[in-house]
Amino acid sequence: MAIQVNKQFLDKDQVGNMIEWLAAFGRTEHGGVTRLLYSRPWLEAQHALKNKMDQMKLQTHFDSVGNLFGRLPGTDTSEKTILTGSHIDTVVDGGKYDGAYGIIASFVAVLRLFETYGYPKKSIEVVSFCEEEGSRFPLTFWGSRNICGEYTLDRVKDIKDAEGIEFLDAMKFAGFDPHAYTSPVRGDIESFIEIHIEQGMVLEKNQNQVGIVSHIVGQRRYTIRIKGESNHAGTTPMQYRKDAVTAASRLISFLTEKTNEVDSGLVATVGRMQVKPNVPNVVAGEVEFSLDIRHHQESVIDQYCGEIFAEFERVTKNQEMELSISQWMDVKPVQMDVQMGELAQKIAEKKNIRYQPIISGAGHDAQVFGDVCPTTLLFVPSQQGISHSPSEFTSLDDLEVGIDLLTEVLYKLAY
Amino acid sequence: MAIQVNKQFLDKDQVGNMIEWLAAFGRTEHGGVTRLLYSRPWLEAQHALKNKMDQMKLQTHFDSVGNLFGRLPGTDTSEKTILTGSHIDTVVDGGKYDGAYGIIASFVAVLRLFETYGYPKKSIEVVSFCEEEGSRFPLTFWGSRNICGEYTLDRVKDIKDAEGIEFLDAMKFAGFDPHAYTSPVRGDIESFIEIHIEQGMVLEKNQNQVGIVSHIVGQRRYTIRIKGESNHAGTTPMQYRKDAVTAASRLISFLTEKTNEVDSGLVATVGRMQVKPNVPNVVAGEVEFSLDIRHHQESVIDQYCGEIFAEFERVTKNQEMELSISQWMDVKPVQMDVQMGELAQKIAEKKNIRYQPIISGAGHDAQVFGDVCPTTLLFVPSQQGISHSPSEFTSLDDLEVGIDLLTEVLYKLAY
Repeated sequence: MAIQVNKQFLDKDQVGNMIEWLAAFGRTEHGGVTRLLYSRPWLEAQHALKNKMDQMKLQTHFDSVGNLFGRLPGTDTSEKTILTGSHIDTVVDGGKYDGAYGIIASFVAVLRLFETYGYPKKSIEVVSFCEEEGSRFPLTFWGSRNICGEYTLDRVKDIKDAEGIEFLDAMKFAGFDPHAYTSPVRGDIESFIEIHIEQGMVLEKNQNQVGIVSHIVGQRRYTIRIKGESNHAGTTPMQYRKDAVTAASRLISFLTEKTNEVDSGLVATVGRMQVKPNVPNVVAGEVEFSLDIRHHQESVIDQYCGEIFAEFERVTKNQEMELSISQWMDVKPVQMDVQMGELAQKIAEKKNIRYQPIISGAGHDAQVFGDVCPTTLLFVPSQQGISHSPSEFTSLDDLEVGIDLLTEVLYKLAY
Repeated sequence: MAIQVNKQFLDKDQVGNMIEWLAAFGRTEHGGVTRLLYSRPWLEAQHALKNKMDQMKLQTHFDSVGNLFGRLPGTDTSEKTILTGSHIDTVVDGGKYDGAYGIIASFVAVLRLFETYGYPKKSIEVVSFCEEEGSRFPLTFWGSRNICGEYTLDRVKDIKDAEGIEFLDAMKFAGFDPHAYTSPVRGDIESFIEIHIEQGMVLEKNQNQVGIVSHIVGQRRYTIRIKGESNHAGTTPMQYRKDAVTAASRLISFLTEKTNEVDSGLVATVGRMQVKPNVPNVVAGEVEFSLDIRHHQESVIDQYCGEIFAEFERVTKNQEMELSISQWMDVKPVQMDVQMGELAQKIAEKKNIRYQPIISGAGHDAQVFGDVCPTTLLFVPSQQGISHSPSEFTSLDDLEVGIDLLTEVLYKLAY
């Protein structure tokens, strides 16, 4: 059973066509994509991908949680497998490129390699992870964490989606009956390589075509609550106020300015604020806000948190207000494999691709693999940095450059 | 038909009893009072007051919008009338003292004056204004503005409450048929005197028993909108952000610190904030916040607004964000009558009442009268400055000191 490469996949325009083809599964009225784990559009997309892989005679299979694999077998059966791909699920009304591009790029790369060089020495597998975004159920990386042995069915047995549908029932609906579950752990992966859109504007601002990720940031998320005293906006002189909005504003100004002092790569975001009672003529008695902190070095996050929280304590104590800081997320930074990064860099130089090292500020399946095997992550530019939106866009030229680099890296690894 | 004073009204404890008696009309489960304009509790309270005034043989009448008057006629019919009182309506779940105390104090003062001195030279009228708070319909001072000729039925013909009930239908329900409307304007008022709880903590902090109001502040209210750019909290470096929360925080810190620089009596409040999209891991693209500014001098408000809005423009322009400032309230400051204030001051000194001049940061019926006749406003302390709440409290001793001063001022004005 020989691999049969349809020549159209060697053509640049076909990459754009495949992006559109996959985006049709779950297309929204705004031109975006909603493809939530185990939903009908998700199921149709995974099966359509499997069919395409089958047509090319890749060896396909689903594991018991719905990760799809398409294998180009290696000639040396004693060798481990090179895994490459990304995730099939999307956020609600997301873009066409996030996840999908990584699957398509890997698929196209493997076909081109076979067309040019025949069978590799080491097997290469294209993977379409079942879940990464955490958009339907309150967990993320369900696909990669199953493969890497971090999650099993136990993790999801009490989890429901927003409509109250149980995770295990949704799995069963999609054809992955939990009673038939067998461990998806893969002990045969030598290395993992993922290509993804940047979802930021760094490459575009720097006019680079590719980013070679050195680290995926660690993330901490907190809820900060300040309790002051609700009062009449007219009859309470400024000096007698315990105004939670004013205090929160000071803390937010401070934490924003502090990022650059501690490290220029540090980002801190207050995206959510809730004011009580939230009435124009009442001094606010309480403010709650979220704080999202990211950096690729744990020590930098530690230092930053130490400094800002000390200031939070000082300011609120000074004003006789109550402060509560509660952490609800702690993801460690992950370093990508240095040798694989250097390999990608050398190839980029040889091919005159404008590249740069880059830190990933978002989470990716590569960070799960980064803990268990040599892993690398490549970025292509996102126009205006827009992502998780129907407006997400990457030019065909940029998509093609990414695939070109990925193809060559896979060649070096597998042939 | 002689005035008949029930001796119990001369007793200090009875003032407390009357406060409780009136608070029973519209009492809430939290021990507060909800007595909205033209509602059943409002109607019962006004009629109960009328009955009490009738029992004492005061000459009572309702005007055509529901203001209640109880007149102690003067002996010199060529003289104008001294008006004293406050409003019967409350906010939702408000306190027992706001408005009610002013009516009860005026009523008790008039009875005590008659008991001691008999008929005055000039008529004194106790007034229970139908509406001041603006809690049911979107307008304020409906009672006093009708008496002062500022409002007529035209003002309310398109106004509805939160349940969609038309103002004119509510009036009719309460027995004030708009078709029977005759102008409530009073051309015979020589002066107006109101006593009220401070609703702030200035008197308490200064351990004073009475405040003699020199001015009622002007108020301006604005909605400030900042439009930046919504972005990914992980992939957008700090220097590329147009973070509306950060910008708003800077403006709020600035406007707060600026108050004291411009004038220590100036107050500025951001009580309401709305963040979009208000998600922890998304840089906020838009923030809208309210701004309430109060001072007793128009020129100070002008200067302050000029300085902060220039800074708002500078900060948002610097960060390439859009700024919109829209004003939706502009109430001018009102000065109380200097001579009446001096009279109150002299009496306070003679009686060894601990008093101070004070600025009213809240609106009161006195500001409506202040534009048309000599008017004075007296404050008694509010425990911890709490108001518009079931916890609103003023001690019986403080209530009594206020009534004592009010009684003597009325004596000087009318006898």
